[in-house]
Amino acid sequence: MSIAYYNGVFSKPEDVRIPLSDRSVFFGDGVYDAAIGRHGKIYMLDEHVERFFANAKAMKIHVKTEKSEMRDLLYECVKRSGEDSFFLYFQASRRGGERKHACTAEKSNLLITVTRIDEPTPDSTMTLSIFEDKRYLYCNVKTLNLLPSVLASCDAEIRGFDEAIFHREGTVTECAHSNVSIIKDGELFTHPEGAYILSGTARAKMISTALDMGIVCHDTPFSVRELMSADEVLVTSSTKLCRRARRIEEKVFPLSDDTIGAKICKAIHRDYVISTE
Amino acid sequence: MSIAYYNGVFSKPEDVRIPLSDRSVFFGDGVYDAAIGRHGKIYMLDEHVERFFANAKAMKIHVKTEKSEMRDLLYECVKRSGEDSFFLYFQASRRGGERKHACTAEKSNLLITVTRIDEPTPDSTMTLSIFEDKRYLYCNVKTLNLLPSVLASCDAEIRGFDEAIFHREGTVTECAHSNVSIIKDGELFTHPEGAYILSGTARAKMISTALDMGIVCHDTPFSVRELMSADEVLVTSSTKLCRRARRIEEKVFPLSDDTIGAKICKAIHRDYVISTE
Repeated sequence: MSIAYYNGVFSKPEDVRIPLSDRSVFFGDGVYDAAIGRHGKIYMLDEHVERFFANAKAMKIHVKTEKSEMRDLLYECVKRSGEDSFFLYFQASRRGGERKHACTAEKSNLLITVTRIDEPTPDSTMTLSIFEDKRYLYCNVKTLNLLPSVLASCDAEIRGFDEAIFHREGTVTECAHSNVSIIKDGELFTHPEGAYILSGTARAKMISTALDMGIVCHDTPFSVRELMSADEVLVTSSTKLCRRARRIEEKVFPLSDDTIGAKICKAIHRDYVISTE
Repeated sequence: MSIAYYNGVFSKPEDVRIPLSDRSVFFGDGVYDAAIGRHGKIYMLDEHVERFFANAKAMKIHVKTEKSEMRDLLYECVKRSGEDSFFLYFQASRRGGERKHACTAEKSNLLITVTRIDEPTPDSTMTLSIFEDKRYLYCNVKTLNLLPSVLASCDAEIRGFDEAIFHREGTVTECAHSNVSIIKDGELFTHPEGAYILSGTARAKMISTALDMGIVCHDTPFSVRELMSADEVLVTSSTKLCRRARRIEEKVFPLSDDTIGAKICKAIHRDYVISTE
Protein backbone atom coordinates (compact mmCIF):
# COMPACT_ATOMS: atom_id res chain seq x y z
CA MET A 1 0.00 0.00 0.00
CA SER A 2 1.09 3.58 -0.58
CA ILE A 3 2.51 5.49 2.32
CA ALA A 4 3.36 9.09 3.15
CA TYR A 5 5.48 10.83 5.73
CA TYR A 6 5.11 14.49 6.63
CA ASN A 7 7.17 16.12 9.38
CA GLY A 8 7.39 13.02 11.53
CA VAL A 9 3.95 11.55 10.93
CA PHE A 10 3.24 8.49 8.77
CA SER A 11 -0.12 8.23 7.00
CA LYS A 12 -1.74 7.33 3.70
CA PRO A 13 -0.91 9.88 0.96
CA GLU A 14 -4.59 10.82 0.69
CA ASP A 15 -4.63 11.72 4.39
CA VAL A 16 -1.69 14.15 4.32
CA ARG A 17 -2.71 17.74 5.04
CA ILE A 18 -0.40 20.67 4.41
CA PRO A 19 -0.72 23.95 6.34
CA LEU A 20 -0.38 27.35 4.63
CA SER A 21 2.90 27.92 6.48
CA ASP A 22 4.37 25.32 4.10
CA ARG A 23 5.56 27.64 1.37
CA SER A 24 5.07 25.03 -1.34
CA VAL A 25 1.41 26.16 -1.38
CA PHE A 26 1.96 29.86 -2.11
CA PHE A 27 5.37 29.94 -3.81
CA GLY A 28 6.33 26.43 -4.95
CA ASP A 29 9.14 27.15 -2.49
CA GLY A 30 10.80 23.77 -2.26
CA VAL A 31 12.95 21.10 -3.87
CA TYR A 32 12.42 17.40 -4.41
CA ASP A 33 13.90 14.23 -5.72
CA ALA A 34 12.51 10.88 -6.79
CA ALA A 35 13.76 7.35 -7.34
CA ILE A 36 12.44 3.91 -8.05
CA GLY A 37 13.24 0.54 -6.55
CA ARG A 38 12.10 -2.98 -5.85
CA HIS A 39 12.62 -5.73 -3.33
CA GLY A 40 13.13 -3.07 -0.66
CA LYS A 41 16.13 -1.58 -2.49
CA ILE A 42 16.28 1.99 -3.81
CA TYR A 43 18.05 2.35 -7.15
CA MET A 44 20.89 4.92 -7.18
CA LEU A 45 19.86 6.19 -3.76
CA ASP A 46 23.14 7.93 -2.99
CA GLU A 47 22.97 9.96 -6.20
CA HIS A 48 19.41 11.05 -5.43
CA VAL A 49 20.16 11.97 -1.83
CA GLU A 50 23.29 13.91 -2.82
CA ARG A 51 21.36 15.83 -5.48
CA PHE A 52 18.48 16.54 -3.08
CA PHE A 53 20.80 18.14 -0.54
CA ALA A 54 22.69 20.05 -3.24
CA ASN A 55 19.39 21.38 -4.62
CA ALA A 56 18.17 22.41 -1.17
CA LYS A 57 21.45 24.25 -0.62
CA ALA A 58 21.17 25.99 -4.01
CA MET A 59 17.71 27.27 -3.03
CA LYS A 60 18.94 28.11 0.51
CA ILE A 61 16.47 25.68 2.07
CA HIS A 62 17.77 24.24 5.32
CA VAL A 63 17.12 20.51 5.64
CA LYS A 64 17.80 19.57 9.23
CA THR A 65 17.89 15.83 8.66
CA GLU A 66 21.42 14.50 8.05
CA LYS A 67 22.11 12.57 4.84
CA SER A 68 22.48 9.24 6.64
CA GLU A 69 19.28 9.84 8.63
CA MET A 70 17.55 10.74 5.37
CA ARG A 71 18.64 7.47 3.77
CA ASP A 72 17.37 5.56 6.83
CA LEU A 73 14.07 7.43 6.75
CA LEU A 74 13.57 6.78 3.03
CA TYR A 75 14.22 3.06 3.63
CA GLU A 76 11.82 3.13 6.57
CA CYS A 77 9.11 4.57 4.28
CA VAL A 78 9.79 1.93 1.62
CA LYS A 79 9.59 -0.81 4.25
CA ARG A 80 6.33 0.51 5.71
CA SER A 81 4.77 0.74 2.24
CA GLY A 82 5.30 -2.95 1.63
CA GLU A 83 5.36 -2.23 -2.11
CA ASP A 84 7.59 -4.50 -4.18
CA SER A 85 8.02 -2.13 -7.13
CA PHE A 86 7.83 1.43 -5.91
CA PHE A 87 8.19 5.10 -6.75
CA LEU A 88 9.84 7.06 -3.95
CA TYR A 89 9.31 10.83 -3.83
CA PHE A 90 10.80 13.23 -1.27
CA GLN A 91 10.36 16.98 -0.95
CA ALA A 92 11.72 19.72 1.30
CA SER A 93 9.82 23.00 1.37
CA ARG A 94 10.61 26.22 3.18
CA ARG A 95 8.49 26.89 6.25
CA GLY A 96 7.33 30.45 6.93
CA GLY A 97 4.75 32.43 8.79
CA GLU A 98 2.27 34.53 6.87
CA ARG A 99 2.56 34.90 3.10
CA LYS A 100 5.57 37.09 2.28
CA HIS A 101 8.12 36.57 -0.50
CA ALA A 102 11.21 37.05 1.65
CA CYS A 103 11.70 34.33 4.24
CA THR A 104 14.97 33.86 6.02
CA ALA A 105 13.64 31.36 8.56
CA GLU A 106 15.85 28.29 8.63
CA LYS A 107 12.95 25.87 8.86
CA SER A 108 11.72 23.34 6.35
CA ASN A 109 9.10 20.64 5.97
CA LEU A 110 9.87 17.13 4.80
CA LEU A 111 7.34 15.19 2.74
CA ILE A 112 7.93 11.64 1.51
CA THR A 113 5.62 9.36 -0.46
CA VAL A 114 6.05 5.78 -1.63
CA THR A 115 3.61 4.48 -4.23
CA ARG A 116 3.39 1.38 -6.38
CA ILE A 117 4.64 1.55 -9.97
CA ASP A 118 4.91 -0.78 -12.90
CA GLU A 119 8.53 -1.81 -13.20
CA PRO A 120 10.51 -0.29 -16.06
CA THR A 121 11.13 -2.64 -18.97
CA PRO A 122 14.28 -2.86 -21.12
CA ASP A 123 12.53 -2.38 -24.44
CA SER A 124 9.77 0.18 -24.00
CA THR A 125 9.51 2.94 -26.57
CA MET A 126 7.69 6.24 -26.58
CA THR A 127 6.20 9.07 -28.62
CA LEU A 128 7.15 12.72 -28.09
CA SER A 129 5.87 16.15 -28.98
CA ILE A 130 7.89 19.34 -29.29
CA PHE A 131 7.21 22.36 -27.09
CA GLU A 132 8.84 25.74 -26.63
CA ASP A 133 11.10 25.94 -23.58
CA LYS A 134 10.05 29.06 -21.66
CA ARG A 135 11.39 27.84 -18.34
CA TYR A 136 13.58 29.71 -15.90
CA LEU A 137 17.36 29.42 -15.70
CA TYR A 138 17.33 27.11 -12.66
CA CYS A 139 16.54 23.98 -14.70
CA ASN A 140 19.52 22.24 -13.10
CA VAL A 141 17.66 22.33 -9.77
CA LYS A 142 14.67 20.08 -9.06
CA THR A 143 12.36 22.71 -7.58
CA LEU A 144 8.58 22.73 -7.15
CA ASN A 145 8.27 25.45 -9.81
CA LEU A 146 7.08 22.98 -12.43
CA LEU A 147 4.22 24.77 -14.16
CA PRO A 148 5.97 25.12 -17.54
CA SER A 149 6.64 21.36 -17.48
CA VAL A 150 3.01 20.77 -16.51
CA LEU A 151 1.82 22.86 -19.47
CA ALA A 152 4.10 20.97 -21.88
CA SER A 153 3.01 17.60 -20.43
CA CYS A 154 -0.67 18.49 -20.64
CA ASP A 155 -0.25 19.60 -24.25
CA ALA A 156 1.56 16.33 -25.05
CA GLU A 157 -1.12 14.22 -23.37
CA ILE A 158 -3.97 16.01 -25.12
CA ARG A 159 -2.21 15.50 -28.46
CA GLY A 160 -1.61 11.80 -27.72
CA PHE A 161 2.12 11.86 -26.93
CA ASP A 162 3.92 10.30 -23.95
CA GLU A 163 6.30 13.18 -23.26
CA ALA A 164 7.26 16.65 -24.56
CA ILE A 165 10.69 17.71 -25.85
CA PHE A 166 11.64 21.29 -25.01
CA HIS A 167 13.54 23.53 -27.41
CA ARG A 168 14.93 26.97 -26.69
CA GLU A 169 15.03 28.97 -29.93
CA GLY A 170 15.54 25.80 -31.93
CA THR A 171 18.06 24.15 -29.60
CA VAL A 172 16.84 21.01 -27.85
CA THR A 173 17.35 21.19 -24.08
CA GLU A 174 15.54 18.31 -22.39
CA CYS A 175 12.02 16.92 -21.93
CA ALA A 176 9.28 18.02 -19.53
CA HIS A 177 10.36 15.35 -17.04
CA SER A 178 13.25 13.48 -18.71
CA ASN A 179 16.53 14.16 -20.47
CA VAL A 180 16.81 13.60 -24.22
CA SER A 181 19.88 12.57 -26.24
CA ILE A 182 20.51 11.47 -29.81
CA ILE A 183 22.67 8.93 -31.58
CA LYS A 184 24.03 9.92 -34.96
CA ASP A 185 26.58 7.96 -36.98
CA GLY A 186 27.37 5.81 -33.96
CA GLU A 187 28.06 8.67 -31.55
CA LEU A 188 25.98 10.04 -28.70
CA PHE A 189 25.06 13.72 -28.30
CA THR A 190 23.47 15.22 -25.21
CA HIS A 191 22.93 18.79 -23.99
CA PRO A 192 25.75 19.89 -21.65
CA GLU A 193 25.01 20.35 -17.96
CA GLY A 194 24.16 23.85 -16.76
CA ALA A 195 21.15 26.09 -16.24
CA TYR A 196 19.14 24.65 -19.14
CA ILE A 197 18.83 21.01 -18.09
CA LEU A 198 18.60 18.78 -15.07
CA SER A 199 21.69 16.72 -14.50
CA GLY A 200 19.69 13.49 -14.56
CA THR A 201 20.86 10.39 -12.73
CA ALA A 202 19.67 8.17 -15.60
CA ARG A 203 21.40 10.53 -18.06
CA ALA A 204 24.66 10.05 -16.14
CA LYS A 205 24.10 6.29 -16.19
CA MET A 206 23.45 6.43 -19.95
CA ILE A 207 26.71 8.32 -20.55
CA SER A 208 28.79 5.95 -18.40
CA THR A 209 27.12 2.95 -20.05
CA ALA A 210 27.81 4.31 -23.53
CA LEU A 211 31.43 5.07 -22.65
CA ASP A 212 31.83 1.52 -21.30
CA MET A 213 30.58 0.29 -24.67
CA GLY A 214 33.26 2.36 -26.42
CA ILE A 215 30.81 4.90 -27.82
CA VAL A 216 32.03 8.46 -28.29
CA CYS A 217 29.87 10.87 -26.23
CA HIS A 218 29.53 14.58 -26.90
CA ASP A 219 28.23 17.09 -24.34
CA THR A 220 27.07 19.24 -27.24
CA PRO A 221 23.70 20.91 -27.79
CA PHE A 222 21.78 19.77 -30.87
CA SER A 223 19.00 21.44 -32.82
CA VAL A 224 15.43 20.31 -33.46
CA ARG A 225 16.53 19.63 -37.05
CA GLU A 226 19.37 17.40 -35.82
CA LEU A 227 16.96 15.68 -33.44
CA MET A 228 14.62 14.85 -36.29
CA SER A 229 17.42 13.52 -38.49
CA ALA A 230 19.05 11.47 -35.70
CA ASP A 231 19.49 7.73 -36.09
CA GLU A 232 18.04 7.17 -32.62
CA VAL A 233 16.62 9.29 -29.83
CA LEU A 234 17.09 8.22 -26.21
CA VAL A 235 14.97 9.52 -23.34
CA THR A 236 16.25 8.99 -19.80
CA SER A 237 14.54 9.48 -16.46
CA SER A 238 14.79 8.12 -12.93
CA THR A 239 11.38 6.47 -13.24
CA LYS A 240 11.57 4.91 -16.70
CA LEU A 241 15.38 4.60 -16.95
CA CYS A 242 16.16 4.66 -20.70
CA ARG A 243 13.68 4.49 -23.58
CA ARG A 244 13.85 5.01 -27.33
CA ALA A 245 11.58 7.35 -29.29
CA ARG A 246 9.47 5.58 -31.89
CA ARG A 247 7.88 8.83 -33.04
CA ILE A 248 8.45 12.56 -32.54
CA GLU A 249 5.53 14.66 -33.78
CA GLU A 250 4.91 13.19 -37.28
CA LYS A 251 8.37 11.68 -37.73
CA VAL A 252 8.61 7.91 -37.23
CA PHE A 253 11.89 6.41 -36.05
CA PRO A 254 12.45 2.83 -37.22
CA LEU A 255 13.38 0.50 -34.35
CA SER A 256 15.40 -2.68 -34.35
CA ASP A 257 16.83 -4.77 -31.52
CA ASP A 258 20.54 -4.53 -32.29
CA THR A 259 21.08 -0.77 -32.42
CA ILE A 260 23.35 1.17 -30.07
CA GLY A 261 20.29 2.74 -28.45
CA ALA A 262 18.66 -0.63 -27.82
CA LYS A 263 21.88 -1.92 -26.26
CA ILE A 264 22.22 1.10 -23.97
CA CYS A 265 18.58 0.74 -22.82
CA LYS A 266 19.10 -2.96 -22.08
CA ALA A 267 22.39 -2.38 -20.25
CA ILE A 268 20.86 0.27 -17.97
CA HIS A 269 17.87 -1.95 -17.26
CA ARG A 270 20.25 -4.82 -16.42
CA ASP A 271 22.11 -2.53 -14.01
CA TYR A 272 18.79 -1.69 -12.35
CA VAL A 273 17.83 -5.36 -12.06
CA ILE A 274 21.20 -6.39 -10.62
CA SER A 275 21.30 -3.44 -8.19
CA THR A 276 17.84 -4.24 -6.80
CA GLU A 277 18.09 -8.01 -6.63
CA MET B 1 -9.33 38.83 12.62
CA SER B 2 -7.83 37.07 9.64
CA ILE B 3 -10.00 34.65 7.73
CA ALA B 4 -9.51 31.95 5.12
CA TYR B 5 -11.76 30.14 2.68
CA TYR B 6 -10.84 26.85 1.03
CA ASN B 7 -13.24 25.00 -1.26
CA GLY B 8 -16.37 26.10 0.52
CA VAL B 9 -15.13 26.09 4.11
CA PHE B 10 -14.34 29.19 6.17
CA SER B 11 -11.67 28.98 8.88
CA LYS B 12 -8.72 30.80 10.34
CA PRO B 13 -5.72 30.85 7.93
CA GLU B 14 -3.68 28.79 10.40
CA ASP B 15 -6.34 26.07 10.35
CA VAL B 16 -6.43 25.58 6.55
CA ARG B 17 -5.15 22.15 5.48
CA ILE B 18 -4.32 21.37 1.86
CA PRO B 19 -4.41 17.79 0.51
CA LEU B 20 -1.73 16.44 -1.86
CA SER B 21 -4.31 16.35 -4.68
CA ASP B 22 -4.00 20.16 -4.67
CA ARG B 23 -1.26 20.50 -7.26
CA SER B 24 0.08 23.70 -5.70
CA VAL B 25 2.00 21.41 -3.32
CA PHE B 26 3.93 19.36 -5.93
CA PHE B 27 4.02 21.66 -8.96
CA GLY B 28 3.13 25.21 -7.93
CA ASP B 29 0.29 24.50 -10.36
CA GLY B 30 -1.94 27.48 -9.80
CA VAL B 31 -2.57 31.19 -10.27
CA TYR B 32 -3.44 33.93 -7.84
CA ASP B 33 -4.24 37.57 -7.43
CA ALA B 34 -4.19 39.99 -4.53
CA ALA B 35 -5.68 43.34 -3.66
CA ILE B 36 -6.01 45.68 -0.71
CA GLY B 37 -8.93 47.60 0.67
CA ARG B 38 -10.51 49.26 3.65
CA HIS B 39 -13.95 50.07 5.04
CA GLY B 40 -15.23 46.86 3.43
CA LYS B 41 -14.29 48.06 -0.06
CA ILE B 42 -11.78 46.27 -2.32
CA TYR B 43 -9.58 48.60 -4.35
CA MET B 44 -9.62 47.96 -8.14
CA LEU B 45 -11.51 44.71 -7.60
CA ASP B 46 -12.71 44.37 -11.19
CA GLU B 47 -9.18 44.65 -12.56
CA HIS B 48 -7.95 41.96 -10.14
CA VAL B 49 -10.83 39.59 -10.87
CA GLU B 50 -10.44 40.04 -14.63
CA ARG B 51 -6.71 39.35 -14.42
CA PHE B 52 -7.26 36.33 -12.19
CA PHE B 53 -9.60 34.70 -14.69
CA ALA B 54 -7.34 35.61 -17.62
CA ASN B 55 -4.35 34.06 -15.81
CA ALA B 56 -6.29 30.88 -15.00
CA LYS B 57 -7.27 30.61 -18.65
CA ALA B 58 -3.65 31.13 -19.77
CA MET B 59 -2.57 28.23 -17.55
CA LYS B 60 -5.62 26.16 -18.62
CA ILE B 61 -6.95 26.03 -15.06
CA HIS B 62 -10.72 25.79 -14.96
CA VAL B 63 -12.25 28.02 -12.30
CA LYS B 64 -15.87 26.97 -11.93
CA THR B 65 -16.97 30.03 -9.99
CA GLU B 66 -18.40 32.78 -12.22
CA LYS B 67 -16.83 36.25 -12.05
CA SER B 68 -19.83 37.80 -10.31
CA GLU B 69 -19.97 34.92 -7.78
CA MET B 70 -16.24 35.39 -7.22
CA ARG B 71 -16.69 39.08 -6.47
CA ASP B 72 -19.49 38.23 -4.03
CA LEU B 73 -17.36 35.56 -2.36
CA LEU B 74 -14.39 37.90 -2.00
CA TYR B 75 -16.65 40.50 -0.39
CA GLU B 76 -18.12 37.82 1.87
CA CYS B 77 -14.57 36.95 3.03
CA VAL B 78 -13.74 40.61 3.65
CA LYS B 79 -16.95 41.03 5.64
CA ARG B 80 -16.33 37.92 7.74
CA SER B 81 -12.77 39.05 8.50
CA GLY B 82 -13.99 42.26 10.06
CA GLU B 83 -10.64 43.84 9.19
CA ASP B 84 -10.76 47.55 8.41
CA SER B 85 -7.51 47.68 6.39
CA PHE B 86 -6.99 44.36 4.68
CA PHE B 87 -4.92 42.34 2.26
CA LEU B 88 -7.06 40.05 0.12
CA TYR B 89 -5.40 37.06 -1.54
CA PHE B 90 -7.10 34.52 -3.82
CA GLN B 91 -5.64 31.47 -5.51
CA ALA B 92 -6.90 28.79 -7.91
CA SER B 93 -4.85 25.60 -8.17
CA ARG B 94 -5.33 22.60 -10.42
CA ARG B 95 -6.73 19.53 -8.69
CA GLY B 96 -5.39 16.12 -9.68
CA GLY B 97 -5.07 12.59 -8.45
CA GLU B 98 -1.66 11.12 -7.79
CA ARG B 99 1.48 13.09 -8.66
CA LYS B 100 1.87 13.20 -12.45
CA HIS B 101 2.95 16.18 -14.55
CA ALA B 102 0.15 15.92 -17.13
CA CYS B 103 -3.29 16.62 -15.73
CA THR B 104 -6.24 17.32 -17.96
CA ALA B 105 -8.83 17.15 -15.17
CA GLU B 106 -11.02 20.23 -15.26
CA LYS B 107 -11.06 20.64 -11.51
CA SER B 108 -9.57 23.36 -9.37
CA ASN B 109 -9.33 24.44 -5.75
CA LEU B 110 -10.11 27.93 -4.54
CA LEU B 111 -8.23 29.45 -1.62
CA ILE B 112 -8.91 32.93 -0.26
CA THR B 113 -7.33 34.71 2.69
CA VAL B 114 -8.01 38.11 4.21
CA THR B 115 -5.44 39.49 6.64
CA ARG B 116 -4.86 42.83 8.31
CA ILE B 117 -2.33 45.22 6.80
CA ASP B 118 -0.99 48.63 7.54
CA GLU B 119 -2.59 51.06 5.12
CA PRO B 120 -0.40 52.37 2.32
CA THR B 121 0.79 55.93 2.79
CA PRO B 122 1.22 58.59 0.09
CA ASP B 123 4.84 59.39 0.88
CA SER B 124 6.62 56.16 1.77
CA THR B 125 9.95 55.50 0.14
CA MET B 126 12.06 52.38 -0.20
CA THR B 127 15.48 50.86 -0.77
CA LEU B 128 16.17 48.34 -3.53
CA SER B 129 18.83 45.82 -4.49
CA ILE B 130 19.61 44.54 -7.98
CA PHE B 131 19.30 40.86 -8.85
CA GLU B 132 19.68 38.83 -12.04
CA ASP B 133 16.35 37.92 -13.65
CA LYS B 134 16.48 34.18 -14.34
CA ARG B 135 12.73 33.76 -14.38
CA TYR B 136 10.62 31.96 -16.96
CA LEU B 137 8.87 33.63 -19.87
CA TYR B 138 5.44 33.58 -18.23
CA CYS B 139 6.14 36.64 -16.05
CA ASN B 140 2.93 38.24 -17.33
CA VAL B 141 0.96 35.55 -15.49
CA LYS B 142 0.60 35.52 -11.70
CA THR B 143 1.39 31.86 -11.09
CA LEU B 144 2.53 30.04 -7.95
CA ASN B 145 5.97 29.44 -9.51
CA LEU B 146 7.56 32.20 -7.46
CA LEU B 147 10.83 30.69 -6.29
CA PRO B 148 13.06 33.06 -8.31
CA SER B 149 11.21 36.00 -6.76
CA VAL B 150 11.58 34.38 -3.33
CA LEU B 151 15.35 34.04 -3.86
CA ALA B 152 15.65 37.68 -4.94
CA SER B 153 13.49 38.85 -2.01
CA CYS B 154 15.49 36.80 0.51
CA ASP B 155 18.74 38.19 -0.88
CA ALA B 156 17.35 41.74 -0.62
CA GLU B 157 16.14 41.21 2.94
CA ILE B 158 19.43 39.71 4.09
CA ARG B 159 21.28 42.66 2.57
CA GLY B 160 18.91 45.16 4.21
CA PHE B 161 16.84 46.23 1.20
CA ASP B 162 13.04 46.43 0.93
CA GLU B 163 12.73 44.94 -2.56
CA ALA B 164 14.85 43.59 -5.43
CA ILE B 165 14.99 44.96 -8.98
CA PHE B 166 15.41 42.30 -11.67
CA HIS B 167 17.58 42.80 -14.73
CA ARG B 168 17.85 40.50 -17.73
CA GLU B 169 21.28 40.90 -19.30
CA GLY B 170 21.45 44.51 -18.19
CA THR B 171 17.86 45.45 -19.07
CA VAL B 172 15.60 46.23 -16.10
CA THR B 173 12.36 44.20 -16.21
CA GLU B 174 10.49 44.59 -12.91
CA CYS B 175 10.93 43.89 -9.20
CA ALA B 176 10.48 40.62 -7.29
CA HIS B 177 6.91 41.61 -6.41
CA SER B 178 6.38 45.08 -7.92
CA ASN B 179 6.83 46.92 -11.21
CA VAL B 180 9.55 49.53 -11.54
CA SER B 181 9.60 52.65 -13.71
CA ILE B 182 11.83 55.70 -14.02
CA ILE B 183 11.40 59.41 -14.56
CA LYS B 184 14.05 61.15 -16.64
CA ASP B 185 13.90 64.74 -17.86
CA GLY B 186 10.22 64.94 -16.97
CA GLU B 187 9.16 61.81 -18.86
CA LEU B 188 8.19 58.37 -17.59
CA PHE B 189 9.75 55.13 -18.84
CA THR B 190 8.45 51.66 -18.02
CA HIS B 191 9.13 48.20 -19.43
CA PRO B 192 6.55 47.26 -22.10
CA GLU B 193 3.99 44.56 -21.33
CA GLY B 194 4.78 41.03 -22.45
CA ALA B 195 6.45 37.88 -21.17
CA TYR B 196 9.05 39.71 -19.05
CA ILE B 197 6.79 41.62 -16.64
CA LEU B 198 3.47 41.43 -14.87
CA SER B 199 0.95 43.87 -16.19
CA GLY B 200 0.45 45.40 -12.76
CA THR B 201 -2.80 47.11 -11.77
CA ALA B 202 -0.88 49.82 -9.89
CA ARG B 203 1.44 50.18 -12.88
CA ALA B 204 -1.62 50.82 -15.10
CA LYS B 205 -2.90 53.33 -12.54
CA MET B 206 0.50 55.04 -12.51
CA ILE B 207 0.50 55.38 -16.31
CA SER B 208 -3.06 56.74 -16.46
CA THR B 209 -2.30 59.13 -13.60
CA ALA B 210 0.86 60.37 -15.32
CA LEU B 211 -0.97 60.84 -18.62
CA ASP B 212 -3.70 62.80 -16.82
CA MET B 213 -0.95 65.05 -15.47
CA GLY B 214 0.29 65.64 -19.03
CA ILE B 215 3.45 63.59 -18.58
CA VAL B 216 4.83 61.80 -21.65
CA CYS B 217 4.98 58.01 -20.96
CA HIS B 218 7.20 55.56 -22.83
CA ASP B 219 6.63 51.79 -22.89
CA THR B 220 10.35 51.39 -23.46
CA PRO B 221 12.82 49.09 -21.67
CA PHE B 222 15.63 50.83 -19.81
CA SER B 223 19.01 49.57 -18.68
CA VAL B 224 20.47 49.26 -15.18
CA ARG B 225 22.71 52.21 -16.12
CA GLU B 226 19.66 54.31 -17.07
CA LEU B 227 17.94 53.22 -13.85
CA MET B 228 20.88 54.45 -11.80
CA SER B 229 21.03 57.78 -13.60
CA ALA B 230 17.25 58.37 -13.47
CA ASP B 231 15.86 61.49 -11.80
CA GLU B 232 13.35 59.35 -9.89
CA VAL B 233 12.49 55.68 -9.60
CA LEU B 234 8.88 54.62 -8.99
CA VAL B 235 7.88 51.22 -7.65
CA THR B 236 4.25 50.16 -8.00
CA SER B 237 2.38 47.23 -6.49
CA SER B 238 -1.18 46.34 -5.53
CA THR B 239 -0.27 46.29 -1.85
CA LYS B 240 1.85 49.40 -1.53
CA LEU B 241 0.46 51.36 -4.51
CA CYS B 242 3.25 53.73 -5.59
CA ARG B 243 6.51 54.44 -3.80
CA ARG B 244 9.74 56.22 -4.65
CA ALA B 245 13.18 54.69 -4.32
CA ARG B 246 15.43 56.55 -1.89
CA ARG B 247 18.36 54.18 -2.53
CA ILE B 248 19.26 51.46 -5.02
CA GLU B 249 22.29 49.43 -3.93
CA GLU B 250 24.80 52.18 -3.01
CA LYS B 251 23.20 54.95 -5.04
CA VAL B 252 21.14 57.48 -3.08
CA PHE B 253 18.27 59.28 -4.80
CA PRO B 254 17.54 62.74 -3.39
CA LEU B 255 13.85 63.20 -2.53
CA SER B 256 11.75 66.31 -2.42
CA ASP B 257 8.00 66.83 -2.12
CA ASP B 258 7.28 68.63 -5.37
CA THR B 259 8.72 66.22 -7.94
CA ILE B 260 6.69 64.44 -10.63
CA GLY B 261 7.21 61.13 -8.81
CA ALA B 262 5.94 62.54 -5.52
CA LYS B 263 2.87 63.94 -7.26
CA ILE B 264 2.09 60.62 -8.97
CA CYS B 265 2.41 58.74 -5.65
CA LYS B 266 0.09 61.19 -3.93
CA ALA B 267 -2.47 61.13 -6.77
CA ILE B 268 -2.65 57.31 -6.72
CA HIS B 269 -2.99 57.28 -2.94
CA ARG B 270 -5.80 59.85 -3.21
CA ASP B 271 -7.56 57.63 -5.75
CA TYR B 272 -7.29 54.74 -3.29
CA VAL B 273 -8.66 56.81 -0.41
CA ILE B 274 -11.59 58.13 -2.46
CA SER B 275 -12.40 54.69 -3.91
CA THR B 276 -12.52 53.07 -0.47
CA GLU B 277 -14.31 55.79 1.44
